[in-house]
Amino acid sequence: MTALHNQLGVVHRNIVRADAKATERLSHFGVATIHEAMGRVGLLKPYMRPIYTGAHLCGTAVTVLLQPGDNWMMHVAAEQLQPGDVAIAACTAENEDGFFGDLLATSFRARGARGLVIDAGVRDVKDLTSMQFPVFSRAISAKGTIKATLGSVNIPIVCAGAIVNPGDVVVADDDGVVIVPAALAAQVADAAQAREDKEAEKREKLAAGVLGLDMYNMREPLAKAGLKYID
Amino acid sequence: MTALHNQLGVVHRNIVRADAKATERLSHFGVATIHEAMGRVGLLKPYMRPIYTGAHLCGTAVTVLLQPGDNWMMHVAAEQLQPGDVAIAACTAENEDGFFGDLLATSFRARGARGLVIDAGVRDVKDLTSMQFPVFSRAISAKGTIKATLGSVNIPIVCAGAIVNPGDVVVADDDGVVIVPAALAAQVADAAQAREDKEAEKREKLAAGVLGLDMYNMREPLAKAGLKYID
Amino acid sequence: MTALHNQLGVVHRNIVRADAKATERLSHFGVATIHEAMGRVGLLKPYMRPIYTGAHLCGTAVTVLLQPGDNWMMHVAAEQLQPGDVAIAACTAENEDGFFGDLLATSFRARGARGLVIDAGVRDVKDLTSMQFPVFSRAISAKGTIKATLGSVNIPIVCAGAIVNPGDVVVADDDGVVIVPAALAAQVADAAQAREDKEAEKREKLAAGVLGLDMYNMREPLAKAGLKYID
Amino acid sequence: MTALHNQLGVVHRNIVRADAKATERLSHFGVATIHEAMGRVGLLKPYMRPIYTGAHLCGTAVTVLLQPGDNWMMHVAAEQLQPGDVAIAACTAENEDGFFGDLLATSFRARGARGLVIDAGVRDVKDLTSMQFPVFSRAISAKGTIKATLGSVNIPIVCAGAIVNPGDVVVADDDGVVIVPAALAAQVADAAQAREDKEAEKREKLAAGVLGLDMYNMREPLAKAGLKYID
Amino acid sequence: MTALHNQLGVVHRNIVRADAKATERLSHFGVATIHEAMGRVGLLKPYMRPIYTGAHLCGTAVTVLLQPGDNWMMHVAAEQLQPGDVAIAACTAENEDGFFGDLLATSFRARGARGLVIDAGVRDVKDLTSMQFPVFSRAISAKGTIKATLGSVNIPIVCAGAIVNPGDVVVADDDGVVIVPAALAAQVADAAQAREDKEAEKREKLAAGVLGLDMYNMREPLAKAGLKYID
Amino acid sequence: MTALHNQLGVVHRNIVRADAKATERLSHFGVATIHEAMGRVGLLKPYMRPIYTGAHLCGTAVTVLLQPGDNWMMHVAAEQLQPGDVAIAACTAENEDGFFGDLLATSFRARGARGLVIDAGVRDVKDLTSMQFPVFSRAISAKGTIKATLGSVNIPIVCAGAIVNPGDVVVADDDGVVIVPAALAAQVADAAQAREDKEAEKREKLAAGVLGLDMYNMREPLAKAGLKYID
Repeated sequence: MTALHNQLGVVHRNIVRADAKATERLSHFGVATIHEAMGRVGLLKPYMRPIYTGAHLCGTAVTVLLQPGDNWMMHVAAEQLQPGDVAIAACTAENEDGFFGDLLATSFRARGARGLVIDAGVRDVKDLTSMQFPVFSRAISAKGTIKATLGSVNIPIVCAGAIVNPGDVVVADDDGVVIVPAALAAQVADAAQAREDKEAEKREKLAAGVLGLDMYNMREPLAKAGLKYID
Repeated sequence: MTALHNQLGVVHRNIVRADAKATERLSHFGVATIHEAMGRVGLLKPYMRPIYTGAHLCGTAVTVLLQPGDNWMMHVAAEQLQPGDVAIAACTAENEDGFFGDLLATSFRARGARGLVIDAGVRDVKDLTSMQFPVFSRAISAKGTIKATLGSVNIPIVCAGAIVNPGDVVVADDDGVVIVPAALAAQVADAAQAREDKEAEKREKLAAGVLGLDMYNMREPLAKAGLKYID
Repeated sequence: MTALHNQLGVVHRNIVRADAKATERLSHFGVATIHEAMGRVGLLKPYMRPIYTGAHLCGTAVTVLLQPGDNWMMHVAAEQLQPGDVAIAACTAENEDGFFGDLLATSFRARGARGLVIDAGVRDVKDLTSMQFPVFSRAISAKGTIKATLGSVNIPIVCAGAIVNPGDVVVADDDGVVIVPAALAAQVADAAQAREDKEAEKREKLAAGVLGLDMYNMREPLAKAGLKYID
Repeated sequence: MTALHNQLGVVHRNIVRADAKATERLSHFGVATIHEAMGRVGLLKPYMRPIYTGAHLCGTAVTVLLQPGDNWMMHVAAEQLQPGDVAIAACTAENEDGFFGDLLATSFRARGARGLVIDAGVRDVKDLTSMQFPVFSRAISAKGTIKATLGSVNIPIVCAGAIVNPGDVVVADDDGVVIVPAALAAQVADAAQAREDKEAEKREKLAAGVLGLDMYNMREPLAKAGLKYID
Repeated sequence: MTALHNQLGVVHRNIVRADAKATERLSHFGVATIHEAMGRVGLLKPYMRPIYTGAHLCGTAVTVLLQPGDNWMMHVAAEQLQPGDVAIAACTAENEDGFFGDLLATSFRARGARGLVIDAGVRDVKDLTSMQFPVFSRAISAKGTIKATLGSVNIPIVCAGAIVNPGDVVVADDDGVVIVPAALAAQVADAAQAREDKEAEKREKLAAGVLGLDMYNMREPLAKAGLKYID
Repeated sequence: MTALHNQLGVVHRNIVRADAKATERLSHFGVATIHEAMGRVGLLKPYMRPIYTGAHLCGTAVTVLLQPGDNWMMHVAAEQLQPGDVAIAACTAENEDGFFGDLLATSFRARGARGLVIDAGVRDVKDLTSMQFPVFSRAISAKGTIKATLGSVNIPIVCAGAIVNPGDVVVADDDGVVIVPAALAAQVADAAQAREDKEAEKREKLAAGVLGLDMYNMREPLAKAGLKYID
């Protein structure tokens, strides 16, 4: 089974989801930590924002390619969602219409979905907040959509500048959204843990007044780069 | 009495406000519902955002046309406000200065106004939030304005892409802002009620796991449009 | 000692900070009030926003000039921070990477810093919020930065459209960010106080239903400017 | 016949076009001159740009309301075009797809249309330039559109911030696009002529070194406003 | 050999380029035609613009991943360029610095490269225009870059919203930029030719006054969709 | 004489202009070269664009601070212009109105001015192009301005992100706009010449097929930084 990027009119029913345990481990780390643990790649652009403060999600990607002003594929995607999945949607053109609201959220939740990431707009944010259904979007808009044109489900997509393959791990929090390729989930969780282990110690030192200049041995490289102190 | 669009230097004292009861009925619906009930028209652009989470307003429009960096007409508008009105302001050029703050809000509230929609900036947001005076704007800016150039009050304006006639109903919530022409207020309230009545049933079904694909009978049209499922 | 604007690779250790008492007095006024008290100058552009609602800071500027994607100078700046200072950072190019997070905030706080203003991105906003460490930025981004290129510390910078000299007073709240030149701090505090004294009285009148048209004697100048009332 | 703003699914066949002679007279003036002659109203937002340098058009408006990603209504509009008309199109959502190319331009020209103004994208700009078919748009995009959803033709629309009624005069040049209400066409042409008559004399004086300060008698009002000269 | 998306610090020397003859055939079609021939996919976002009117390029992709403010990888890429290639570059963060100028263009041309597509800024546009070296970019900026941080060459990248694999065909003209996967080059050239063959006939009919409504048999589906004509 | 940044309502008549000979020398270099010669500082943001291709200017700065929608100070500035000067204008708020057209250009040219740089809009671009009067602006807009509020002339301003002091050298071409502090003009001209001398030789080598990798000795530092070549 090969899924072509951006092919229109197809739904892939069988996708290889990231390992459930590795996905669960990743849910305990912040997006910034995971992004660093991956070698500073995998982030969506920073215009993707949570619709309410504190929204957080981690799950396996069911990808959706939408047409502007048309949310037909969201209903097709609902059927492909399994417990632990996150729907992640891109649009063939820049569009900020409200493709998703409380009815679809009810349906997605009934399927076991953990949230939505969408490079477009959503609506019913008051209800979505009451439901504590986490959504990360580029816009909030009351504008409704039609159901007339085919997109696709579970093909590779580009969402807010990042490549997402079906089954990848999607993690989102107040700092943004990061994609972890399914095959790397466990390895990235290890690296994130290692990174976090070191941070506690660093935080303690910095809180005690030790300077990063000394803790990271920056004085010599700064001097070598030519930094001049002037009194 | 004919009011010309965008004419400068006039104040219309007598405007035909939407029926009070219909306006009251509209206040119980969300913006997304009203927009759908109107046939998907009437929305302001989604860059219009509430200055605090949960802000909500519904009332009859007193329109204001401002000049960039000049809020003189806000004071002229204050006198035209009646209980139940909403001030809705546009600017002759794109401008994000802070045209409105807690003093004007105090005055508007004393007049019985229910809030402000402005395609420009406002300030004193902490105070406005304490007052729970709902404002929807394109920006927040501390920058003050002068009082030197005439605009108009109660002429038809274009606000964030929508035509607003004095007396129209303005409804705003977390999802955005919608304008209901005065003459259609009751009819739109009926349509919104009808729409909402159906939503409860749909929500229940979706929560029980019924798919939109089945509830909306989408499988056949999707197949006809050529959607292919790949295993 | 003369510091050149935008010179790269220098750190000025001795800067003249605004008077501590005047700075303290300024902390009691809102940004909008201070901006008016200065004659409507000194504001940063309105895209600078607090990372959490209610963030507020007032202190003396330690300026930082960053290179895109590189936060090396933040560590150099940490050493120059004294109790009561605010770090204020610009970048040589428009860049929304996350230059600052909870570790640097821990270090800055240990030095006595009162917060950060940065014309770029920050991350770890959940932690920064828990710490109640006030930050005003143009973006939130999980994207990390490197430490490879020299900028400068304590030179004059342009931050979000405003000139900032080291030692100036930086005041920020929900309405934005304003810079008060060090030499003018006391004088601006006086003017802000005078302005605020008058506002209470005005607010009371407006709340009682007096119109701004009458309170500010606008009717005559409006008529003179040609305003026409139409019944 | 009353046409509702933004109503979907209707085509008005009978519209009242501005007087042909007045329209012809307006074609001799620049957009800036006409905008001033109208009292500084009627302009579209400045993001509307010609697709080639020197593009210029003047004609009576046939309005088109499009849905995002769908140019079906352009074909419906073609039939309503008469010699001397200009098609002017808005979209129900912000969308930069390419709704118009050389085939539609060929059809529009065959109908006698003088050009297109569209608050969206167009394509085939090389061919349109060769044809010298003037187009003013917000974007250029190769992205094609579908033909699936109804908009309307010859209803009042908001295009790039301006209200346009069918039959109004549309004038566009390098400086932008302005709308002259049909009923005012002759009157605005008169005012534009009067304005232009005065400009030649002013230009001559200024070229001879006379200062605007003196020619417009600004020195006294400047002094009165408090301007201070410092040597 | 497997190239990971966005991996930093690697250069793939051996890439599979699209068939030379198919690439040559594609160079004769416009971007809009190719995009339609591919089923309306493969376009970069419309903010990518030629630096001079009439710029056009078609060649096989050598991909470059840059760090913000750093053009080191452009020099690494130069060595990988072969006659008929096009360099196509993305950046790990949004950045409009001038990563490319006349010296690099001289080097790229000496290697046989046909042009550059870059989701960032370039400079020396006067010289590049004199050289008729086609460049499509998001910005023009005199701002120079450093050479300090590793990116990669010939890995899959996301450029202005589109996935580009090394060896894909890149076609760009006044309408934008489109990517044709290497394996589909011949097939897309066939489809583009078929499409173009039909256009000549359509153009002739439309020029003769036949309406698209009739040529495309739209009247019935429009009526079925509910379009109403009002006299 | 000390001029305060952004002070409103003042005109400084006596400013220290950069040395005429040094200014003349700078006029022979491109903006990118000068920016590099200054140590990569001094550029205005890249949204500043010439209104016609090939526009170029170099002269001493007469600075103008404008209020939004008000061009009164342009007339005040005209009197301060001397042969060889360039007017450079900022606005107290972001504003894209057309502050400048062919009449002011006629006046400025009569005073000997070499052009205009303005962080706002201009109009009459067809006439300005015919006059070959070079203008660099953020926007083109037919929208007129009033003459009601004081700004200042010849105070330090921030224009498109750069500090400009009266008398500084302003250089602008297709790549952007750069400011050279008056005191550094000769020194920067020397550095620009030295830089340009080296470029000819480099260009020749690169044209002959020598790689930057070898010419700049990059292979070792790249390997040290960890770059991996994969066959």
